[in-house]
Amino acid sequence: MDGFQVVGKFVPRIDAKIKVEGAASYLADMHLPGMLYGRICRSPYPHARVVEVNTRKAKRVPGVVSVLTGKDVPYLYGRSVGDQPVIASDRVRHVGDVVAAVAAESMEAAEEAVEKVEVGYETLPAVFDLEESLQPAASIVHEDMEAYWREKLVNPVPGTNICSRLTLIHGDIDDGFRRSDLVVENRFRSPMVQHCYLESKVSIAQFDPSGRICLWTHTQSPYRLAEVLLRILKISYKDLRLIVPFIGGGFGGKTPVGLEPLAIELARASRHRPVSLALDREEEFIGSWGRVPAVVEIKSGLKKDGTIMARNVRVLWDNGAYAMAGPPICRNATVGASGPYNIPHVHIEGLCIYTNNIPSGAMRGFGIPQVTWAYESHSDIIAEELGINPYEFRIKNVYKDGTRSATGEKLRSVGLKKCLESVANEFQKDATSIKPSLKSSKKYGKGLACTQKLMGSPSSSSAFIRIESDGTVIIMSSGIEVGQGSQTTLAMIASEVLGIPISKIRVNLPDSDFTPYDESTTSSKFTFHGGNAVRLAALDARKQILKIARKTFAVKSYDELDMSGGFVFARKDPKNKKTIGSLLTSGHYGKLSNVVGKGAFFSDYARPLDPKTSQSSRATACWMYAAHIAAVEVDEQTGAVKILRIVAAHDVGKAINPMGVEQQIEGGVLMGVGQAISEQMIMEKGKVLNPGFKDYKVPTALDLPEIVPKIVEVEHWKGPFGAKGLGEVPIAPTPAAIANAVSDAVGVRIFDLPLTPEKILRAIKEKSTG
Amino acid sequence: MDGFQVVGKFVPRIDAKIKVEGAASYLADMHLPGMLYGRICRSPYPHARVVEVNTRKAKRVPGVVSVLTGKDVPYLYGRSVGDQPVIASDRVRHVGDVVAAVAAESMEAAEEAVEKVEVGYETLPAVFDLEESLQPAASIVHEDMEAYWREKLVNPVPGTNICSRLTLIHGDIDDGFRRSDLVVENRFRSPMVQHCYLESKVSIAQFDPSGRICLWTHTQSPYRLAEVLLRILKISYKDLRLIVPFIGGGFGGKTPVGLEPLAIELARASRHRPVSLALDREEEFIGSWGRVPAVVEIKSGLKKDGTIMARNVRVLWDNGAYAMAGPPICRNATVGASGPYNIPHVHIEGLCIYTNNIPSGAMRGFGIPQVTWAYESHSDIIAEELGINPYEFRIKNVYKDGTRSATGEKLRSVGLKKCLESVANEFQKDATSIKPSLKSSKKYGKGLACTQKLMGSPSSSSAFIRIESDGTVIIMSSGIEVGQGSQTTLAMIASEVLGIPISKIRVNLPDSDFTPYDESTTSSKFTFHGGNAVRLAALDARKQILKIARKTFAVKSYDELDMSGGFVFARKDPKNKKTIGSLLTSGHYGKLSNVVGKGAFFSDYARPLDPKTSQSSRATACWMYAAHIAAVEVDEQTGAVKILRIVAAHDVGKAINPMGVEQQIEGGVLMGVGQAISEQMIMEKGKVLNPGFKDYKVPTALDLPEIVPKIVEVEHWKGPFGAKGLGEVPIAPTPAAIANAVSDAVGVRIFDLPLTPEKILRAIKEKSTG
Repeated sequence: MDGFQVVGKFVPRIDAKIKVEGAASYLADMHLPGMLYGRICRSPYPHARVVEVNTRKAKRVPGVVSVLTGKDVPYLYGRSVGDQPVIASDRVRHVGDVVAAVAAESMEAAEEAVEKVEVGYETLPAVFDLEESLQPAASIVHEDMEAYWREKLVNPVPGTNICSRLTLIHGDIDDGFRRSDLVVENRFRSPMVQHCYLESKVSIAQFDPSGRICLWTHTQSPYRLAEVLLRILKISYKDLRLIVPFIGGGFGGKTPVGLEPLAIELARASRHRPVSLALDREEEFIGSWGRVPAVVEIKSGLKKDGTIMARNVRVLWDNGAYAMAGPPICRNATVGASGPYNIPHVHIEGLCIYTNNIPSGAMRGFGIPQVTWAYESHSDIIAEELGINPYEFRIKNVYKDGTRSATGEKLRSVGLKKCLESVANEFQKDATSIKPSLKSSKKYGKGLACTQKLMGSPSSSSAFIRIESDGTVIIMSSGIEVGQGSQTTLAMIASEVLGIPISKIRVNLPDSDFTPYDESTTSSKFTFHGGNAVRLAALDARKQILKIARKTFAVKSYDELDMSGGFVFARKDPKNKKTIGSLLTSGHYGKLSNVVGKGAFFSDYARPLDPKTSQSSRATACWMYAAHIAAVEVDEQTGAVKILRIVAAHDVGKAINPMGVEQQIEGGVLMGVGQAISEQMIMEKGKVLNPGFKDYKVPTALDLPEIVPKIVEVEHWKGPFGAKGLGEVPIAPTPAAIANAVSDAVGVRIFDLPLTPEKILRAIKEKSTG
Repeated sequence: MDGFQVVGKFVPRIDAKIKVEGAASYLADMHLPGMLYGRICRSPYPHARVVEVNTRKAKRVPGVVSVLTGKDVPYLYGRSVGDQPVIASDRVRHVGDVVAAVAAESMEAAEEAVEKVEVGYETLPAVFDLEESLQPAASIVHEDMEAYWREKLVNPVPGTNICSRLTLIHGDIDDGFRRSDLVVENRFRSPMVQHCYLESKVSIAQFDPSGRICLWTHTQSPYRLAEVLLRILKISYKDLRLIVPFIGGGFGGKTPVGLEPLAIELARASRHRPVSLALDREEEFIGSWGRVPAVVEIKSGLKKDGTIMARNVRVLWDNGAYAMAGPPICRNATVGASGPYNIPHVHIEGLCIYTNNIPSGAMRGFGIPQVTWAYESHSDIIAEELGINPYEFRIKNVYKDGTRSATGEKLRSVGLKKCLESVANEFQKDATSIKPSLKSSKKYGKGLACTQKLMGSPSSSSAFIRIESDGTVIIMSSGIEVGQGSQTTLAMIASEVLGIPISKIRVNLPDSDFTPYDESTTSSKFTFHGGNAVRLAALDARKQILKIARKTFAVKSYDELDMSGGFVFARKDPKNKKTIGSLLTSGHYGKLSNVVGKGAFFSDYARPLDPKTSQSSRATACWMYAAHIAAVEVDEQTGAVKILRIVAAHDVGKAINPMGVEQQIEGGVLMGVGQAISEQMIMEKGKVLNPGFKDYKVPTALDLPEIVPKIVEVEHWKGPFGAKGLGEVPIAPTPAAIANAVSDAVGVRIFDLPLTPEKILRAIKEKSTG
C-alpha cells in the first residue's frame, strides 16, 4: 500500500472518447480560409548535379500560385547539422531529394505542376554501402561538411563521409582481452525500417499580416523545432507560433525538423496565403526518414566461468544523405552498445556515416534496438560457446545497484535483475501451456534478451496549472500527446497532488504562444521530465489553495489541511469538507481567489560525457531496463516463424498508469515483432523498392502473439512518484529474444534482420549440409 | 530620481505599428471555413406580449440554415441578474428586444430572412419615466423578479420596478442638517449616451466536433463572461474556450454579457457550423446598451464658513428593460454620490429601476460621471450661495489623508488636493494666454470640478511569464488590450523587473485555454491588478534567472546579482556581463534551463460594504482622484459653447507610462466634452430617435479643445510601483467643469446634460426676462 489515490491505478485515457468518436481533430482535417496545397518535385537519382530547373510550364498550370526552386530558398537546415537544403539547388543526394515545390489552389493542380517541372541532372558517383563509403576513393556526400552549423556533440571527420565519430574508453581493452580465456566475435546488421505511424506528415504555415509565422505541425518537440526555425530564419520567439494538434503516432518520425521550412517558404512565396504541405505514404518512405541502418561488430573476451572481461564494439550507422538525428543517435546508442553488462574493459567506436541512401534518423529507441539486436544475439552465442544457461549468463553479468557502467558511473536504482527474474518466473509458471509439436516440422524454442536505454538528458520541462472557480484544473504543458497517453499521465499526476478528480482536469495541447518550454517528447523522457514539471506546478497550486482555506478551517498552518476528491478538509476533522470551488469563491461578493501554479524540472544532475572517453559521473538522468522472453514455433520445412508468446518485463520505476504502461509494452513488442520477422525497406542503389504498405510488411492484428507485460518497479530517486521512462524500450529486446528462440528451436543463427523464412530456411539447409 | 529604468519613461505603444499598418486583425476580419452570418429580428414595441412567431417564410429564404425563436432558447442570462431571455418568447420589454435570429450563408440571406419572420404582438402598457415607474400603478417590467438568479449585491424590491436598492448611512443625517446654517438642494439629470467605440460588436461561435464551444468575442472580461456562460449553459471550464483579439474600443460597452449566448445558440442550431453574429451601428444604439441615465437629487447642509455638515443624495438609475450591470453601477457609484468631501453626516439612497427604455449598463466611469455631474455643479451653486471662491470651497472640504470617507474608512494616499493645486497653478500660469472678447457677444468663463472613483474590488488578476532561450519574454495575461495601452504597460513592468528591453517582450492576447484568470479589464483596475500580477510573475522569473547565474558569476547568493539591458552581472563587477539567453543555455550541450514565472494578485484587503449602511473599513482597493478646470467661450446670442482649454490633473499614484497616461486623460476629456455639450440618445416612448452618427453628435477632431494633462503622483501602498488606476476617471469631472465655466461666463445654470445651445439660450433669456 503506497497510499496513492490515483497514481498506480488503471485509468482509461482521457482522450479516448473524442478519439474513438472521431471528434479529435487532426491536421489533415484542418482547413484555413484561402489555404493552398503544396506538393514536392523529387529527384529520381541518388546523387546528381542539378543543371537546370525549368518551372515555366509548371507555373502555367491553372491554379498554381507559386513554384519554388533551390534558388528561392538558399539556406540549409537540420536538427544536429545544418546540412540539408530546403530545396536542393546544385546537388541532389538521395532518391527523393527535393528539387522544386509547388503551392496551388488544389492538390490536383499542385500535382500536375510538379509533373511539369523540368529538371536537368548530371549524375554523380554514389555510395550506398557503409564499408565502401569509408574507403579513401569513395565519393564524398558532403564536401563542405566543416562549413555547416552543428550541435556541440557532432564530431565530424573532414574529408571523409564520417559525419560524427564517438569513442568510449572504459578500462584497458587490450588488458581485458589478455586476461580472457575465450574471445567471441560477431557482426550484426539492422536494415532501414519505417515508423509506419497511421497519420502521415502535414505542416500548415500561415503568415499573419504583421509577418509573424504561425505553424500547425506534427512535431514531438515544438521547442526544438522552434530553435531550428529561429536559427535558420533568423527570427525571434516573438515572430513564431507553433501549434501542435493531436498526433496520430510519431515514434521519433515527427521530431524536428521535417516539412516545416518548406511549408513556411511556400506560404511566404504565395503572397502569405496559408499552405498545407502533406506527404503521401510513398513519400513517407522516400522523402522522410527511416530508422538508421546499423552494422555492429562486437567482440567479447570471457573467462570460462562466464565473466565478461572485455568488449570491443564498432558500430557503423548509415545516416543516408543528411545528418538529421544521426549524430545524437550515434552518441546515445553507441555508448550503450556494450549492453547492460558489468565489463571492466570496454572500447566502443561509433561512426555516423553519410551515404546516398534515403536519410535516416530518429525512431523509437534512438539506436538502442539496433545495438540490442547485436549484443543480445551475441550473449546467447557466448552462452552457447561457454555451455552456460543464457539466463544464468545474464543474471551473473548484468548491471546491478552499485555496478560501474561502461560510461563509468556507479549505477543506482537498477531493476534489470528483477526484470530477468520476472520474465523467468512468469515463463516458468506458464511453460506447460505451450506444447511443442515434437513430431511435426514445427519446432519450439524460447529466447531471452534484455536491454538498457539512457534517457536523453539533461533535459527540461515546465508546466503551468490553473484552478478555475468551478474547481476545473487546466494543465499547460508543451508535451506531446502522440498517442502514448501523456495527457492521461499528466492528469493523473495533477489529480494525485491536488486531490481533484481526473474528470475535472483538462490538459491543453501545445501552443508555443502559451504552453511553456519542454525540450521534447522523445527519448522516453516525457513522464519523467514533464511529469515532474506538472507535479511541481500542482504542488505550487495545492499550497495556494490550502493557504486560502486556512481561515475557513480556522487552522494556523496549511499543513494541517489536506485535499481529496475535490474537497479540502482539516486532517483532524475530515468530515467537515469544502469543495475547492467554494473555497476559491468564498470571499466577499463571491470574488475568485485565483490559483496559478508553475513547475520547472531540469535534469542537470546528468553530466556531460567526456568527449574522448564518453565517461561521465552521471551519463543520463535515468537508465531504463527491460527483459523479454519469446516463445516461437519455427517450421523447418518453410523457415516460417510463428511467435507464440512474449513475456516482457520493464523496470518503469513506478507505473503512474499501469494501463498505459501495459499498452506501451504491448505496442512496442508488436513493433519489435515486425522488425524481427518482416519489416525492412528494401533498397537498390538508393531506391526504395517497397515504399508502401502493400510491399512493406507491418504486422497486423493477426500477427499479434500473446504478449504478457510485467511491470517491475524499482523507484528512481528523481522521477515523479519514482517513475522512470518506458516508451521506446519495449521495441528493443524483442528481435534478439525472437532470434535466440529461433536458434533454440532449430539451431540456426541469423545475423541480419529481419528473420525472413528465406534466411532461416537457407541457414537450416546450410547447417544440414554442413 | 526614482531609480527606475523603464517605469516613468514615455514609451510608445508596442502594438502601435501593427495597428497603424493595418496588420492587427480584428474580429470582423476573421473568417472560419463554413462560417455563417447571424442577424437578429427585433421588436418594434417597447412592451408587448409575443403572440406568435412564424418563421416558415424566413426558413424558405435560400441560404438560410437556421432560424431561432424564444422557444428554442428557453434560458435567461445576465451579468448581475439572470433576467434577460436570449430570445424573448412571451414578452418583449424594449424596442429592439430580440424575437428571432437567423443564421445564413450570407449576410444578405440572413437579412432577407429576418424581414420575413412574422411576429404577432399584443402591446402592453409601458413605463419610460423614472418617477412614473416608481408609482404603485406603474406597469411592472419584470413580474417574476424574485425567481431570477442574481449576484449577492443585488437588492431588489419585489412587486415594484426597483431592481436594486442601495443605502449609505454615515453619521446622523438629521443631526447634520439641524446643525447647518444653510441648505442647498438641486436635481440633476444625465441622459443615456453611447460608447461610440469605433468597432461594433462581433461574436463568433464554433462547436468543435467534441461539442466544446470556442468563442471569439469582444469582451473586456473573458472570465466574467465565462462565469455567465458556465452558469446559463450548465457547462464547465473544460467545455469552453474564449479567445479575445484586439478590440477597437470598449469603454464598458464590451463587458459581459452581450451577443455571446445568441451566437452560441445559432451555431448549435446550425449543425455546429461556426456563426459570426455582428451588430451594425444602428443596433449598437438599440440592441446593445447605453450609459445608465440618472436623476440625482442632492441636498446639502452647510455652515456659513463653507463647512459641509450634511448631505442627502437620492439617485434614480434608469436601468431600462434588463439589469445588465445596473445593480453594481448603482452600488459602486451611489456610494460615491456625496463626492470627495469630508462630510460628517451623509445619507444616500440609490435605486436601480426597470423601465421599458433601451437597457442601460456599464460605460466608462460606471455611474461616477453622472453623480460627479451633479455634485460638482452643486458645489459651485453652494460656493456661489455662500460667496466663497469655488476653489477655496473645494480645498477646504475635499478628502485628504486621514479623512474618514462617506463609506466610513480612514483614507490613505489621497492626491485630490494636489490635483486641485496642480490645475489651479497651471491655469494661473497660462491664464493670460486666453483673451476673453469683452465687447462681443462671446463671454469667457472658467469652471472647476473634481471627482473620486473607487476601483471595483476586491478583484484578482494572475499572469504567467516565460523566458525563452533567446531572451524573449512572453507575458500571458487575460487582461484586455482595448486600445488603452495595457500591453505596453505590462511590457514596461516586466521590463523594469527583468532588465530586459521592451523590444524583446511579447504580450499575448487572452485565450481562456491558456491565459490565467483575470477578473476584468474594467473599473480602471487593470494596471493595478494585472500590473501587480505581471510584476510578481516577473519577480518570480527574475529570481530563477539569478539563481541559475550564480555559478557563472561565482557568487554565493543571487542577491549579489542584478539584471539590466538584457544582461546579468554581479553588482560588484557590472562590466562582466552575460546575456540572459546565454545563461539559460549555458549548461552542457547548450540545454535550456527553462524559466517560468507566475504571479497572482488579489486585492482582498478591500472589505465588504455593510449591506444596510454601506460602511466598510476599506471600501475599495484604490480610490482615484482628479480635478479639471475648463475655460469656455459662450456666445450669448446663440447659446453655443466653445471649449477653449481643459487642464486635467489626475492622481495616478505612479505613471508607469506617462505617455499612456496623457493619452488616457486626453481621450477621456474629449469624451467628457462630448457628453457635456452634445451627446445624448434622444428617446421617445422607448424608441431611440437618433441611432447613428449622423444624428448622435460625437465630438470630432475639430471639436477638440486644448487639453493639458497634469500627472499627480501620490503613490498607492499596494499599487505596482505605486500606481493607481486612471482609465475611467478623466471623463467624470469634465461636464461639471464646463457647466461651471458656462455659469461663470453667462451666469446661467443648466441641470440637464448636455449643455445644448438651445438650453443655454433659453436659460439666458429666462434670466434676462426675470
